[in-house]
Amino acid sequence: MTGKAAPLTAMLLLVAGLCLHAQAKVEQYKRFETSLLYTPGGNGFKDITLKATFIHDDTTVTVSGFYDGNGIYRIRFMPAYTGIWRFTTSSDVPQLNNQKGSFECVRAAPGNHGMVKVAGVFGFGYADGTPYFPFGTTAYAWTHMSDPLQEITLAALKPSGFNKIRMCVFPKFYNLVTEEPMLYPFEVKGVKTDSNGKVSKAWDFEKFNLAFFRHLEKRIDDLAGLGIEADLILFHPYDKGQWGFDTMPEEVNLRYIRYITARLSSFKNVWWSLANEWDYVRSKTIADWDLFAGTVVQNDPYRHLLSIHGATATYYDYWKPAFTHVSIQDEAPVQSLYAAALLRNIYRKPVICDEVGYEGNLKSRWGRYTPQEMLYLIVNGVMAGAYVTHGECYMYGNGKDTIFWAKGGRFRGESWKRIGFLRKMIEACPHSLQMADISRDNQTSTAGEGYYFVTLGKEAGNNWKFSLPVKNADYKRLGAGVKFRVEVIDTWNMTVTACPQTFETKTDEDGYRVSDKSGGTVALPARPYIILRITAMP
Amino acid sequence: MTGKAAPLTAMLLLVAGLCLHAQAKVEQYKRFETSLLYTPGGNGFKDITLKATFIHDDTTVTVSGFYDGNGIYRIRFMPAYTGIWRFTTSSDVPQLNNQKGSFECVRAAPGNHGMVKVAGVFGFGYADGTPYFPFGTTAYAWTHMSDPLQEITLAALKPSGFNKIRMCVFPKFYNLVTEEPMLYPFEVKGVKTDSNGKVSKAWDFEKFNLAFFRHLEKRIDDLAGLGIEADLILFHPYDKGQWGFDTMPEEVNLRYIRYITARLSSFKNVWWSLANEWDYVRSKTIADWDLFAGTVVQNDPYRHLLSIHGATATYYDYWKPAFTHVSIQDEAPVQSLYAAALLRNIYRKPVICDEVGYEGNLKSRWGRYTPQEMLYLIVNGVMAGAYVTHGECYMYGNGKDTIFWAKGGRFRGESWKRIGFLRKMIEACPHSLQMADISRDNQTSTAGEGYYFVTLGKEAGNNWKFSLPVKNADYKRLGAGVKFRVEVIDTWNMTVTACPQTFETKTDEDGYRVSDKSGGTVALPARPYIILRITAMP
Repeated sequence: MTGKAAPLTAMLLLVAGLCLHAQAKVEQYKRFETSLLYTPGGNGFKDITLKATFIHDDTTVTVSGFYDGNGIYRIRFMPAYTGIWRFTTSSDVPQLNNQKGSFECVRAAPGNHGMVKVAGVFGFGYADGTPYFPFGTTAYAWTHMSDPLQEITLAALKPSGFNKIRMCVFPKFYNLVTEEPMLYPFEVKGVKTDSNGKVSKAWDFEKFNLAFFRHLEKRIDDLAGLGIEADLILFHPYDKGQWGFDTMPEEVNLRYIRYITARLSSFKNVWWSLANEWDYVRSKTIADWDLFAGTVVQNDPYRHLLSIHGATATYYDYWKPAFTHVSIQDEAPVQSLYAAALLRNIYRKPVICDEVGYEGNLKSRWGRYTPQEMLYLIVNGVMAGAYVTHGECYMYGNGKDTIFWAKGGRFRGESWKRIGFLRKMIEACPHSLQMADISRDNQTSTAGEGYYFVTLGKEAGNNWKFSLPVKNADYKRLGAGVKFRVEVIDTWNMTVTACPQTFETKTDEDGYRVSDKSGGTVALPARPYIILRITAMP
Repeated sequence: MTGKAAPLTAMLLLVAGLCLHAQAKVEQYKRFETSLLYTPGGNGFKDITLKATFIHDDTTVTVSGFYDGNGIYRIRFMPAYTGIWRFTTSSDVPQLNNQKGSFECVRAAPGNHGMVKVAGVFGFGYADGTPYFPFGTTAYAWTHMSDPLQEITLAALKPSGFNKIRMCVFPKFYNLVTEEPMLYPFEVKGVKTDSNGKVSKAWDFEKFNLAFFRHLEKRIDDLAGLGIEADLILFHPYDKGQWGFDTMPEEVNLRYIRYITARLSSFKNVWWSLANEWDYVRSKTIADWDLFAGTVVQNDPYRHLLSIHGATATYYDYWKPAFTHVSIQDEAPVQSLYAAALLRNIYRKPVICDEVGYEGNLKSRWGRYTPQEMLYLIVNGVMAGAYVTHGECYMYGNGKDTIFWAKGGRFRGESWKRIGFLRKMIEACPHSLQMADISRDNQTSTAGEGYYFVTLGKEAGNNWKFSLPVKNADYKRLGAGVKFRVEVIDTWNMTVTACPQTFETKTDEDGYRVSDKSGGTVALPARPYIILRITAMP
């Protein structure tokens, strides 16, 4: 194999039936797709079940097919292993049942690492073992804006350093975001007029709008092309009677979950976020959300990352096994390293502080952080081994502002520019970060033996006296006679300055810390947002 | 009823059998006890089951009886309701089966509030509805010291302001605490010599030492007389082969739990702490602890408070329904109000930070906090609506020190003197405390409408500009035109100084806060550990 993506050679398989347009070769972690022709008598979205079981040596994966309109049923599959995969369909419709086919999965091309999963207890990694550190932003309704604006969003994301974006399936109706979307997830049945004379669309909740889903898929693939994970929000409260997608009948909610998981589970860069601010979706109970979580898990054979996001400080029961990680909107955990570490200690799962407020100039306090504050909060979380999502909310009032947080567009702020710098620094660590001496030293993070960071936050001192804790998480304790070099990293100005002198540890009298044997100090630039990278010399 | 305790009139019931020495009248929340005579053929602790069902109108409570040696079985019961209670025993021994009796429960005397339970989501209250705010200390092995020292401990506790104490059932063997106890929980079977020639006692794990349990009961009753809850630690790791109570066979562990719950559940001031530093008890797994928790719940019909305590930052799954509250050893949550509030938001249960380090002069860093630091940590937690346990570890090396944290004795420190002051302040609040504007204002606590505290921590300013958040937890939002008075409370010096001027709110421009309409400020004494009590004027 050359390592390049196999061309999507259309191929008529027709092994036993009607499988059409399947590929003969599919790159690892990419999508196999096959179609079956059958014109349903009733509602093809609702009345028919279709599954396919893919087999490769000892591995068996059963996926759901879905109706794609015009008498076409589709089956999609993301192969994790190279070699021959064979499949057989099962359906309550004889014409769709027992259809067979096969394809060859070929080695992933460079840069294609597969889907992101939990790695270890607190981290993430791609399917091929490459570590993944989420540096996300948010653009809730970007796929519902005009096509040119969507292209601008993609162009902005491309060089940005972000590798995750939170985005809603359903359109958003909220202060500052009141555009009608181009496409709706359901077919329009007609218009209705409420008691106040307000005219709105009436949905045929039994028929999905195929154009809507194809568009969403295209945008998720576009993100994949940029190496960005789509943290896809399945429900949200920002509807306010505009469309009613937050108050659909339970049967429709569940059919929607089954449909979207059937269509999208084979997309390697999809994450499921059951909700944004779940507690503001007044029509749904904890039992509903648990049912939705179970429905996702049942219908997603790959077990993509799954979480749920609440309003400020509203913690869902993230310890429930359905949830792969914590996705919490709360400023408190990112006020300090120790508070972010608390969440790790409690949940023993990866922690993402998704939406801790945004850089911007809105009147709402959640939308007017300075860029420095936004960066500060991100650094606090990241240095404690959690992850923090960026966002920005600039409103210029000139009719051209788009507010990235909701609509996408161009970045207007300053903190986003630091994301790539920060991400490279984290990706260069030998291990993922955690506090070196939990609950005792609230500044020092460790990335393994001889690899530390000290986060000075808003301190703007002239010097730092060399000092590290003896305890080094579960690594070997730090003793005397270890030589270190120190780099002064200005996270705001994105500079790395090597400290000219080196340091050699001696154990302090109390036995809990080491300092430099000559009492050495590191000169600091008297600016805030400084971190120190302290690495042992060979 | 006069409200005074009914005299413990010994009465021969003999309704249908052998019930001896039961009382005719028992004060509400105190103990009814009856004895049944039967000399077991085998091991009375092990081979016989005995229960009794107490009935009062619609209430039925089934308790376990226990063998108390010398052919005496006892049944104890704590009645919650006044009036006639009737009971019937059940046993696999005919002579103990179907014994009947009754007694009259009379109104609780003043000061007898009954057992402490969870009240609301985050708080505690006595059975009679009186709120209870835990202000605890720790003396792990005080009941294992000499009798005179135990009396000194009780005398020290009496005026102290503490209303809870953490204490171990089993003796403790640890640095600085190596005394052999007076009594052991099991009968001695003989002596054994290990491979190193070390001689130790061999226990008859099938026979409980009655003197041990009677002594423990006496001390728990002594504490009840002082209004102090006994947070009784059932297992701990501080044994190190000295006695082997941390490595007993599982059958013995469970029999011990059933026995101690049968003896002690009727004691109104008992709490169950499954373990101290559970994760250091290497012989036991999470499954063991869960089994122990279930065994306690099954055998304690009153459902006394139950939690489990781990080593620093080791959070058990406190969301499991067996646990009534969080009992966590961790310094991180009490570094700030927002971090303590995080634990409330996550667990939605009462939070007690049990053991966050101790005031003292030990070499170990957990035992050398300044008194000011100890008080600071307690205030941080309490002001966020959590609770924080005090402890002290003074070691003078003159042969007379006892280290209260382990052995009890006299208090040597300074922070304990502030506990009563702090407790009165909290008990005077109209509602229990919580953050007024969660995750947004990290200093302001609310106790309801028009009742706030602002915690200034280590700040030592000259003045404070009057400012409160508009958001007031779930209470009515704070608007303009409300007049307030402010008291400056020095938690270290225990002074309350009324600010001479009054303040009247105006809503700030940004809509999130109010300030004084004349821009007024409160003069401060330029000392740390200040809190402000801010109350609306009638």
